[in-house]
Formats: sequence, structure tokens, C-alpha cells
Amino acid sequence: MADKNIPTKIYLGENEIPKAWYNVRADMKNKPAPLLNPGTGQPMKPEELEPVFCRELIAQEMDNDTAYFDIPGEVREFYKMFRPSPLIRAYQLEKALGTPAKIYYKFEGNNTSGSHKLNSAIAQAYYAKQQGLKGVTTETGAGQWGTALSMACAFFGLDCKVFMVKVSYEQKPFRREVMRTYGASVTPSPSMETQIGRKILADHPGTTGSLGCAISEAVEVAVGSEGYRYVLGSVLNQVLLHQSVIGLETKAALDKYGIKADIIIGCAGGGSNLGGLIAPFMGEKLRGEADYRIIAVEPSSCPSFTRGRFAYDFADTGMVCPLAKMYTLGSDFIPAPNHAGGLRYHGMSTILSQLYHDGYMEAVSVPQSEVFEAAEQFARTEGILPAPESSHAILGAVNEALKCKESGEEKTIVFGLTGTGYFDMVAYEKFHDGKMDDYIPTDEELARYAAKLPNIK
Amino acid sequence: MADKNIPTKIYLGENEIPKAWYNVRADMKNKPAPLLNPGTGQPMKPEELEPVFCRELIAQEMDNDTAYFDIPGEVREFYKMFRPSPLIRAYQLEKALGTPAKIYYKFEGNNTSGSHKLNSAIAQAYYAKQQGLKGVTTETGAGQWGTALSMACAFFGLDCKVFMVKVSYEQKPFRREVMRTYGASVTPSPSMETQIGRKILADHPGTTGSLGCAISEAVEVAVGSEGYRYVLGSVLNQVLLHQSVIGLETKAALDKYGIKADIIIGCAGGGSNLGGLIAPFMGEKLRGEADYRIIAVEPSSCPSFTRGRFAYDFADTGMVCPLAKMYTLGSDFIPAPNHAGGLRYHGMSTILSQLYHDGYMEAVSVPQSEVFEAAEQFARTEGILPAPESSHAILGAVNEALKCKESGEEKTIVFGLTGTGYFDMVAYEKFHDGKMDDYIPTDEELARYAAKLPNIK
Repeated sequence: MADKNIPTKIYLGENEIPKAWYNVRADMKNKPAPLLNPGTGQPMKPEELEPVFCRELIAQEMDNDTAYFDIPGEVREFYKMFRPSPLIRAYQLEKALGTPAKIYYKFEGNNTSGSHKLNSAIAQAYYAKQQGLKGVTTETGAGQWGTALSMACAFFGLDCKVFMVKVSYEQKPFRREVMRTYGASVTPSPSMETQIGRKILADHPGTTGSLGCAISEAVEVAVGSEGYRYVLGSVLNQVLLHQSVIGLETKAALDKYGIKADIIIGCAGGGSNLGGLIAPFMGEKLRGEADYRIIAVEPSSCPSFTRGRFAYDFADTGMVCPLAKMYTLGSDFIPAPNHAGGLRYHGMSTILSQLYHDGYMEAVSVPQSEVFEAAEQFARTEGILPAPESSHAILGAVNEALKCKESGEEKTIVFGLTGTGYFDMVAYEKFHDGKMDDYIPTDEELARYAAKLPNIK
Repeated sequence: MADKNIPTKIYLGENEIPKAWYNVRADMKNKPAPLLNPGTGQPMKPEELEPVFCRELIAQEMDNDTAYFDIPGEVREFYKMFRPSPLIRAYQLEKALGTPAKIYYKFEGNNTSGSHKLNSAIAQAYYAKQQGLKGVTTETGAGQWGTALSMACAFFGLDCKVFMVKVSYEQKPFRREVMRTYGASVTPSPSMETQIGRKILADHPGTTGSLGCAISEAVEVAVGSEGYRYVLGSVLNQVLLHQSVIGLETKAALDKYGIKADIIIGCAGGGSNLGGLIAPFMGEKLRGEADYRIIAVEPSSCPSFTRGRFAYDFADTGMVCPLAKMYTLGSDFIPAPNHAGGLRYHGMSTILSQLYHDGYMEAVSVPQSEVFEAAEQFARTEGILPAPESSHAILGAVNEALKCKESGEEKTIVFGLTGTGYFDMVAYEKFHDGKMDDYIPTDEELARYAAKLPNIK
């Protein structure tokens, strides 16, 4: 059954860990639109960002032209703990589906943070250390990013302050303990530690918090503390740059065995994993060297690509961050409380938004219970318990593979399996008990949020 | 810093997955003592075991002479999902310890069950399927074995009935949900589904169950149901045989790079992981071809090797299973309720017991809070969140590495990292909050249990 000479799991050697991240913006004709200062409506200047972000990361954020950024030696050393990650042929899933398609997945869950987030966390922690900082602050919702950042900070001896949305803090005590194991301080948000936290608690006693509030608290502490900066795990250009390590390895593994991908699929929340996975393939496509179908899979409950507007919007619910031009549902859109988890962001990476707008990629949205059906089938056949987020990509791949079954085509499908679901068993339990919520916003609802988008040409 | 040409993570190719399991009994001059029928006091005959166990597994259990058993093709195919597992050089841990020792660990946690248990679960499920059985029953305490068996049964389409100690069922709902994801039925024990369960519930209303009771229920259901057998995840000779895949890969990886181990360390509960890891090294030692220090690390709270008697004893608390000659604390010894988790068994594999008795290996016992200190140091340096059980081996390796630091010796230490701690964060939380229980049984207490051992020469 197996293809001769191609192992089920393709592991590259450590010397094949990429030596540079690839910046897809360098190959884009239409560059992603710049961030705007919400006060002036003018493009943000580096010095305006310096109180919040690390210097080197601001440079990466704003550079639309440099194609490759060297990966620092210490970051590559850390990458060796969990990279190169395996590219796995899903023989058992193919068999279960009865498809002639060849399905490969790049598995990023083989590290304690349980997701791809570590790829950027270690880079951001490195530049913070290089700048002589004492520590960093961040927010976390589901907890993957907070965990990854805790691990990265432990490695460089940086202080790490995580504001965790209170409801997650209470409902996900295990995530919290993993972060504590890595030495991070974890504060339930809103907290009494910040002005904004105290104000929110005074105005809304008993609130269980929101990501928007946690961001505001993390930024306030970073700006107000000597030697601290704020770091973010998705959406930003710098994050997609770091995550390009996923795609570079995937491409190297495919090239090594002479495999040509036809379709590349990733789940999409803020866009960090998808942008990383597709980067070098998109580069070839932009340069006219190769063609691929590239598909973003997003939750029906939070359909930024498929039902959002391409417009300038606030990047955060609290409207304190810069404006970004992106596919958005409106910065105060809050998805129904189901378990799309890390994919519940109202907007999308400006890079991916521009590429989608220019027709270089497709997007589909899928309902929650179908995602969990795919997750369970994948767990039983391939033996890996996938994160709900990653399972959107699994479902996307399954759907394409079933199309191949109908047409008889032997297409090669590659998808990103971003992480594991060990901390998501509450969602699996809901699914097993038939209590999964499949809410899809109505057109009227989305129009109501869209009407409130800031009026910027 | 790194040794030239030796990668941090040594991955063998899939074609290097062992083709046969190694049976260390074949090289033992003093064979492990046979199981005795508790009624007659005579060695158990295969036909006496057939109502309970699968036929082929009984043959493996009783065979003290065959050195190699072919690994069936379908089992090797399944092994490819997570094997060969990596042998990793702990450069970061070495640096943190400042030791000249070279520390390697064989990491068995890279699969959804999160531990080495899957190596034997898939073998046992395979032989059940081959025998034309409909399903298997088992018990699970902490949940690693139940999870592994669920995965294996899903692969072969076997029914899987797990009796989970009620207190774990309620306190570890996530473990339960993982098993359900793989299609297993999970019943809190004691239950109303069995005679013994109903009796216990009538006698002790409100009991939260015990492993002994769960075993009894699982055996009763297996014996009383057409097409079912009972399977067990540790202690038995057959399980150590299957787990030899760990040691065979470890040795192949070391040999491939010309590395000679000086010390081999594993944690010890029932002995499955330790017996598997050391098998081929012990074989060389028994044949006089090489010498190694081989060290079992057990919890101070349940010190079978270091403070138990070498004697015939019941293998289970309920005293329904055969008698086994082993290092034991007495079949009704129940360790203090701390978090040694899967290492809380009162006895020890008969194979390892005989080898220890004959001086081929050493044993040490370690207190719980030191184990968690080592676990946390390991997590922060090596990036993997270890299971509490596995962390006993980490501490054993750390202690040997610190001796090397004192003596200046560059010894090569290999230890088994059996699994991950994602489902053990309650224990980590206790540790972080300074509430870890370090109870060590007194001599008087142990003597009281030992006095009740059955009187068999």
C-alpha cells in the first residue's frame, strides 16, 4: 500500500531546519495595507510602536521587501527540541475514506505547548532578551499562546506575565498550571492590577472577562513597567514570518521525495498557522513558478473570510490597537459561545486578507459538529487527538479527498495539523453528549456589526 | 557544544522498527518463578488461563525459552504511527546541571495515549482480533492504559469495555472523554453491571472504588461474555515482551552512532516500561557480552523493590488472580494517596524481581516532592512536560548526573521518559501550592503487611 521509499512520517534532519524565515510580502505585488494610527488615521511609525513592541519585531512587522530573515542561532537551537516537525502521510485516514487522494499533514503538536504557537513565541522571546528587556506581557484565551510563551520565556530567563480571560482561568485550571510549571505568572482578567481592570470590575462586577479586556491589561502593564514589552501570538506580519518555518519544512520534505502538492489547506483564525504553512507555496504561486489550490477553513460561527468585509478595522475589541485593513466581521463581533476556540477572532491577518482579496487563495466555512466528526475519525484512524482548531483543516482535507473519491482523481492534499486537543476535552464531551452548538450568525446580525466599521477609505 | 554528527534527537527510520520482540527470559539462568493456582498451589496450566486471557498471549506469557517473537505485520504498521520514538540528548538539562555526564532519554509520550502503554495495547488487541474475539475488557486507574487500549481497539474494530476506578472517573473526566473519543465504553467501578460490583456497592454504599475492584469487574465481564477476554497493561511477562521494542530501538539508536551507555534508568511500578527499556541491555549483561548499571527508580511511598519481600503473593488486591513470586509489599498494601499515579502497585514483574534478586540491577526509592522538582526542571529545560511516573526516572538520572559532576566522570546515562503529564496537572498544582504529600511508610507498617503474605515456600 505504501509508496516505495517514502516513509509514512517524513522527518527532516536537524541540519535541514530552515536557516531563514521567508517573508511572503516580498513577493506580493499588492502589499498588505499599513497599520493606521487610530488617532491620526496615518500609517503607524516605528517609534509610535516602540513603547509597546520590541524593536526588532517592529522592523520585521513593517518590512514588506526583505524576502528572508536569518533565524538566530539560539532560536534554531531551541527549534531542535521539537523541529523539524514530521510531515505524515495519512494512510489510515485515506483507507477509511476510500479515497484515491494522497493526504499529508504537517504535525505541529509535538511539543508541550501543544501547538505551532511556539515557533513565534521563542522568536519573540529571543528579541526581547536581545533588547535587554526584563520580561514580556501577553493575554491568552484558550491558553495555547500563553503556554508557548511561558516555555519560551523559561528558556531565556525572561519574566512572563500572562493575563488569562477569567472564565478560561477558572474553567481551564490545567492550562494555568502548565504555564505556572514554566514559571509564568498567570492573572485572571479583569484584575485589580491595572487601571482598565479596576475600571471594568467597578463597572461590571462579576464579569468573567474577555480577550479584548485581557489585551488591554497586558498592554497597560507592558507600557507602564520598566523593561517590559507586549507580545502577540497571531495576526501580525511578524508572527506569519516566524511561522513560515512550518511551510519551509513542509516544502523541503515534499521536495526531498519529489512529491508535488495540488491542494494546501489550513485552519484560519487570526491566520498565523495558515500564513506560515502556505508561505513558500504562495511565494511560488506569486512568482508564477507553480500553481496550487490554497484553502483556508474557518468556523461558520466566525466567518471572517467568507462573510466579512475587506476594510480597515480595529484589531482589538477594546479599540486601543492600531487599525488594520483586513477581512473582518467588526471589532465588537463576539462569536456564539461554542468551541471554535482559537479561531474566534473577528478579523484576519492583513497579509492573508490581501492575498484572498487578490484571488490567490480560497476560503470555506464549516459547522462545528462536522468539525468534531472529522476530529474523531482522524483520532481513531491516525491516532492523534487533534485540537478543535486543527480539526477545521482536517475536515477541509476530508471534504477535498471525498471529492477526489467521486472524480477518481489522485490529488495530493497537504494540510496543517496545528496542535493537540488534550486540554479541549470539555468540547469533545459536549460533542459525545450531543450538546454541540452549531450556531451560525444570520445575515442581519453580520450586517449590524459591519455597519459599525470605522469609515476609512 | 553538540557532538559532531550526532543529532539532538536520534530518529531511526521506519524500516528500523524492530521486526521481533526480545524475550529476556531466554537469557536468564534463573527463570522467573511460575504463576501458581491460588486454589491448588500448583503452577497454572495454559488451559486454566484460557477463559480469561487470549490464547497467543498465554503462550507468550509462559514461554521462558524463545528469545525472539516476530512482531506481526499489522502491529508494525500501527507502530509506524508513533515509532520509532526519538532518543533525545538532554543538552539543555546537562547545561542546567553543569554535569560532564551525557544524558539521553527515550521518549515514549509522542502518541495520544501519552505513554508507552500503546506498545503492548496494540499487540494484545491484535491477538484478540486474530482469535476472532468480539472485544476485550480491562480496568484503568490513572487512565493511561485504558486510553492506549481504546486506541488499539479502535484500530482493529474491537469492542473495548473499560472499568475505571470511580474516583478517577469523576476526577479525570478528560481521560474518560479521550477513551470515549476512541469508541470505548467507560464504566465507573464499582458498577451495577457485575455481581462483584453489586455486592461491593451493597456492602459499601458510596465507595469510590479501587483498582482491585475494577480488575475483578473486568475479569468477571470477560469470563461471562461470549467472545471477550481480559487484558492487562503491566506486570505480566507478555507485556514486558511487547515493551522490549523500547529497548531494542534505544540500543539500535545508540549503536548507530557508536554510543556506549554506562547507566540505564527507568521508573518502576509494575515493571512494564523498565523491563522493556532494559531488555536488550540486560540480555548482553546476562550473556556476559557487556556491562551496564541498571537502576529502577520507585516512589518512596510504594517501595516494592527497596523495602518489599521476595515472595509469592496475590497479584491483585481482590486475591482472585494467580499467585506470583515477586518483590511485594503485600497484596492489600495501599499507598498513601499521593500522586505516584501509575507506580502505586504493591508488587513487581516476576522477571524484574528475579533479576533484581540475582543482583543484575539496582533500585532506589525517591520522595514525591523531589520527583516534581526534577519534573519541573526537566520541563523548563527540555521543553517536555513529563508524567509524574516518568519523572521518577528523570530524578534518578539527575542524581547520577550530579554524582558525575562531583567525580568529573563523563558517563553516558540513558533513561526512559515514558509519557507526558497533560492529564496530571492536579498533581502539579499541589506541588506549586506546596501541598505535595511526601508520606513514607514506616518499618512497622510494612512489617504488618508482610506478615500477611501467603505462606508458600
